[in-house]
Formats: sequence, C-alpha cells, structure tokens
Amino acid sequence: MKSKVGHRVLSKLEGLGGQIVRDVDKGRNPSMDIPIRALSNVKFDEKRSIIELGDEKQKRYFFNVAMAKKFMQMLMVAEKCKDHLGIGKTTSLRDLYYMVKHTMPGTNEETVDEQDETDECIEDLEVTIDELRESLGLYAMRKGAAVGEITIEDAGDTIDLRRMGSGGWSIPSIVEPDVIRFKKNTAKFVLLVEKDAVWGRLNEDKFWRDHKCILLHGGGMAPRGVRRLLHRLANEVKLPVYVLADNDPWGYYIYSVVKQGSINLAYESMRMAIPQAKFLGLRCEDAKEFKIPVEGTIKLNQQDITRAKQMLAYPWFQKKAWQDEIKSMLKGGVKMEIEALSKRGVTFVTDHYLPKKLKSKDWLD
Amino acid sequence: MKSKVGHRVLSKLEGLGGQIVRDVDKGRNPSMDIPIRALSNVKFDEKRSIIELGDEKQKRYFFNVAMAKKFMQMLMVAEKCKDHLGIGKTTSLRDLYYMVKHTMPGTNEETVDEQDETDECIEDLEVTIDELRESLGLYAMRKGAAVGEITIEDAGDTIDLRRMGSGGWSIPSIVEPDVIRFKKNTAKFVLLVEKDAVWGRLNEDKFWRDHKCILLHGGGMAPRGVRRLLHRLANEVKLPVYVLADNDPWGYYIYSVVKQGSINLAYESMRMAIPQAKFLGLRCEDAKEFKIPVEGTIKLNQQDITRAKQMLAYPWFQKKAWQDEIKSMLKGGVKMEIEALSKRGVTFVTDHYLPKKLKSKDWLD
Repeated sequence: MKSKVGHRVLSKLEGLGGQIVRDVDKGRNPSMDIPIRALSNVKFDEKRSIIELGDEKQKRYFFNVAMAKKFMQMLMVAEKCKDHLGIGKTTSLRDLYYMVKHTMPGTNEETVDEQDETDECIEDLEVTIDELRESLGLYAMRKGAAVGEITIEDAGDTIDLRRMGSGGWSIPSIVEPDVIRFKKNTAKFVLLVEKDAVWGRLNEDKFWRDHKCILLHGGGMAPRGVRRLLHRLANEVKLPVYVLADNDPWGYYIYSVVKQGSINLAYESMRMAIPQAKFLGLRCEDAKEFKIPVEGTIKLNQQDITRAKQMLAYPWFQKKAWQDEIKSMLKGGVKMEIEALSKRGVTFVTDHYLPKKLKSKDWLD
Repeated sequence: MKSKVGHRVLSKLEGLGGQIVRDVDKGRNPSMDIPIRALSNVKFDEKRSIIELGDEKQKRYFFNVAMAKKFMQMLMVAEKCKDHLGIGKTTSLRDLYYMVKHTMPGTNEETVDEQDETDECIEDLEVTIDELRESLGLYAMRKGAAVGEITIEDAGDTIDLRRMGSGGWSIPSIVEPDVIRFKKNTAKFVLLVEKDAVWGRLNEDKFWRDHKCILLHGGGMAPRGVRRLLHRLANEVKLPVYVLADNDPWGYYIYSVVKQGSINLAYESMRMAIPQAKFLGLRCEDAKEFKIPVEGTIKLNQQDITRAKQMLAYPWFQKKAWQDEIKSMLKGGVKMEIEALSKRGVTFVTDHYLPKKLKSKDWLD
C-alpha cells in the first residue's frame, strides 16, 4: 500500500531517472545536480536561527573516471528505494547496503564495499530530490521512548501515551505523517530528557501527568526519529519544547542539535531543527541554587575543555547568556550530571528542580 | 506504595543490618557472608543446562584495613535501597552512585570515587540477600521493544501489544511481577531478534500476527530487562523461545547468554537463563540453503576467529551440532548478517526464511 508521501517520492525518483534517460537519448554525458554537503556550503541563518545548507551544487557525470562509480551507486540506491516504496514497505540502511552490494559481472569489482558508501549516496539522494531519508522509506537504529498527555495513531493503531506504564512507546525511526498522526492532545509542552534513566525517574513519578506534558528521551544524542517527532509536535501541535540535559559540553551539544540542527546534516534543519527550544538545565549555577554538594560535580577533562572552547566560537552560542554559561563552566572547572540532583533525594528532580525551573521560566534560549 | 517484592526485600535488608548490629552489641568484629562471584566459583550445570554460582562464600569484616571501605560502601548501598524501596520508588544505578558518594567528615576521602564501586556493591548485595538488582528497585539503561500476541499490565496500565503500531512497547529495565503482569495471551512462541532493524522489518510485515508470536528485540546483546521478560514468558506463560541472530560469534554469544546465562552474572542464571531456548539462525548452511550470494558474506576477522575458537571449548557449546556449526564457520572463513537475507528481497526474512525454519524445526539447541 503506497502512502501519499510514497507517491510523491516515487515521482521524484522517476523524475531523476527520466532526466538521465533523456541525457542518454540525446547522446549527452548523463549527469545529476547534487547540492554540496560540505562545510563550505553550510551557513547559520541568524534570523531563523537554524544551520542551513547553501545553494552550491556539483554536477556528477557518468562518463568521468572519478565519478562513474558513485554515479552508479546512487542510481542503484534510488532503484532499491523505488522498489520498496513501490510495495509500500520500508527497509533499514543496513539492508539497503546488502541489496545494492554485488559483484559486477565479468569483474572482481563489487558495487559497494562498505555501508558508508550507500549511506553517503542516501544523503546525496536526500538533498538531490529534497526529501528526508525517512520519506525514502529508510530507517536507522531506533532509540528513545515517549509517554504523556497525547494520543497518537501509529501505523493505524491508536495509542494513548497516558497509559503506557513504566515502559512507554518506543519511538520508531520513521515518524512521518503517513505513519504517525497526532490525535487528542492535552499536553502544554514537550520535555526532552537526555537520559533514559532520568526519563524513568520522571515517568515513575508521573511528572507528565502533574505538569501536563509529553515526556521523551533520545537515549543520549536524540536520533533523527526523536528529533523529527519533536519538530512535528512543536510545529503541528504548537507545543513549546524544553530540553533537560547534563551540565557538560555534550549536554549543550545535544540541545544545540535539537535547536539549530547539525553541521553534518545541515540540509535537514528545515524539517528537524526547533529554534524555539529552550535549555532547562542543568546549568553551572544550579549547583549553588539547588545545594548540590561539591561531590556531585565532576572535574572537566581535557576533551571537555577543548569542546567548550570550540562552542564559545560557534555562531549559535553567541548569545550573552550562553557565553556566560560556557565561560562559567570553564572557570569552575567542573561539570554536573542530572543524576547529581539525587543527592538531594530520590524524587528531587521531579518535585523541586523541574517545577521551580518551569515556574520561574529559568531557561537558556 | 510498597509492593510485595518491596516488602520481602526490605525485610532481608533489615535482616542484614540486624545481624551487624548484633555483632556490634556482642563486641564482635561485624561481618557479612558474601558468595564469591569469581570464575573459580562458577560452574556449568550440565543437567539443568545453566551457568551457576557455586557455594563458596567470603567473610567481609569491618575491622580489616583491606575490607573496611567495601564493608562501608555495601552498607551505604543497602541503606539507599532501603530508602527508595520504603517509599515504593526505584532509582537508577547512576543515581544510586551519586546518593552514596560524599566526602567523609574530617577527611579528604570520598565514600566512592567511581560508579564501578557502587555497581560492584550492588552485585555483592544481590548474591548476599539472594535478590535480583531489579527487586532492589535499581534500574539500568533500557534497550529493546516488544509487540505481538499478548496483553500486558505495566504499572497499572493495560497495554495490548497487538496494537502498538510501528514503534512497539519500550521494554523497561525492571519487569518484575509487581510491575509487569501478563494478561490475555494468544501467542504460541516468542521470537527474540538480535537487531532492531530486523525487528522493524518483521513488525512492519506483521509477522507476529500471521505466526501468532511475541516479537522482541534487545538492541544487540539483550539487557537484563529483556532477558528477564523472556524468562518470565518462557516459565509463566510457558512459551517456547526462539532466537534470530547473526551468523557470527557475537550472534552465537547473544544466544548463549539468553540460554545459559553468562559467566559474569552466574548468580542470576536461575532467574534469567532459558535452557529451552532455540537458535533459529542464521547458520553457515543458510547461505547455500537460501541462495545468498557470496557478496552477502563477510570475511571473519582475527577477533572473530579467536572468539569462535574459544567458543568451541565452552562446556555449553559441546553439543555436536554446535561444534559442527562453529567449525563450519571457521572452515568457511566467513560470517553473515541477518540483513544479508535482503539480497533475496525486502521481505524475504518474513515470507521465506522464518516460516521455512519454523515449519521444518530447523534450529540448533
């Protein structure tokens, strides 16, 4: 059963193929125009506050020794996507790699050697036809879970996230509108927590019920499925998004990817970045504010220091509050995990930390 | 709200403390008897086919320079467990570490430096009072998801795993009977797949509906929550358990941990190991049987070869079929991932591989 998205992507894939056939028919060197995914073509849009891909494109030719193999690989990837989309199925990046991989007749040469090669072709294909990998019916590893004040429809099943026990709904890799639909919403905001342990704490305490929210975690760095779900909740359901992460460069980075997107995948920012997301902590000053003793902190290591200094220079960390925050971390020489709040009690994060932060709107933007 | 399990564990913890108080009252050197968790005290019970802890114990004394710190740490861990169990809460291993960690008054000495130390105390505590970590209300990182022909109750919520869409129910770290209960079951077996990508494939194809089963994945090596859930499904619901893993030493190992338990955590085998579990493949012969071309295989690396040779010597891989299997892998010099089946088509694993294996009972025991 082909979805609406499936139909749209299929016709784009056919368009790509049709253009190459026309090149062949006219005796031209077949080519594709591929937006350049290098740092040189990435810019930070200050006004919209997202990391974006620029307009530079590169022509990839078939009759070109340096380009022929990639040209072929990309068409093979497109062909396989067409196959599974045509029967309304999805497949994993790893499966796609195997589907494409074979020995070329009459040679000892393989079409692809490692999965990196098909993964790269997929990213090229995404920018070339301006569709997310998810719309191409390709999924990656799933991470993350959700509970809270919303009912969703997932592949035709109605799931009330208010009744998901201690486990929660496992967030799939593909959460596009043809699979996941939003039904009755009673949430006032979305809270993304970095760690599943903290999510477990908040879910056990039914924080989401008392504070009318949707509670998500992404198992560390949020994978694309979680980011895309957040983006849809922020834009379609119009919910504010708050991020609860560790007070360390990695926590800041997790937040910044949710908010502005990443350099590596700048082309997806428009459909993934959430510029209005707020950082709810932890922050350096929280140690004092919430009376976390010094044993709750961890010394910065050299990697933390290097990373924090890099962050000071990023255009998306130029706001004064963020500069102060990062400098304060470097000056203090310590970082702090959310779990350190447990020094004040098992449910301190639920009963004191979060309610206070939310009430006083004490977040970083 | 304290659960039945909570009450039982609390009284064991109080028993442990009471014994130490009695030692103090009588002017004796306070001590605890801790079963030894070293390889020297691990044995493979051939008859029951599980890896078990032996009967050797070690006395840990308070007045002993080498033991005093661990003695203290263990009591602190026990105290914190008593605290959260007393209010009917659970907490994570990381949180517990922070709760225990502090500077001892009048010194520069910390009670614990790294989480390893509290984790080890928890394992000691488990064997000493003969309770799983999960019953102590301690959770670790969650991995894995479930869908299929069963309705469960999770923390009071009724969840029909037949209506969990593409995402599934995220399997929590603690699945003990006071949290998770089994309701209406229409499954005839449980299928554990190593990889979430394969789980996604089988769920999209609704394999579990056509074949009346419960479909689980553990995100690679199944974590304790998934193993414990499998164990309960095998023993309480009396379902056969099949494992679908890669044809490589890691896949074999994942299966063997599910079946016999692991050396590291031999003390939990009784409550985790599933001796009746069967290995449904992939196997070396499947490449030929299912016409997977040679490009679907991957050369064994040195680590694979070393690992496979070690496995040949393990008591739990002594059955002829397993010896043949491992030797065949070493002879062929290649391994194979489940995803390689996709060379035969997107849904080949669903439509051909698994049905054929199940019908012909073509598994390894």
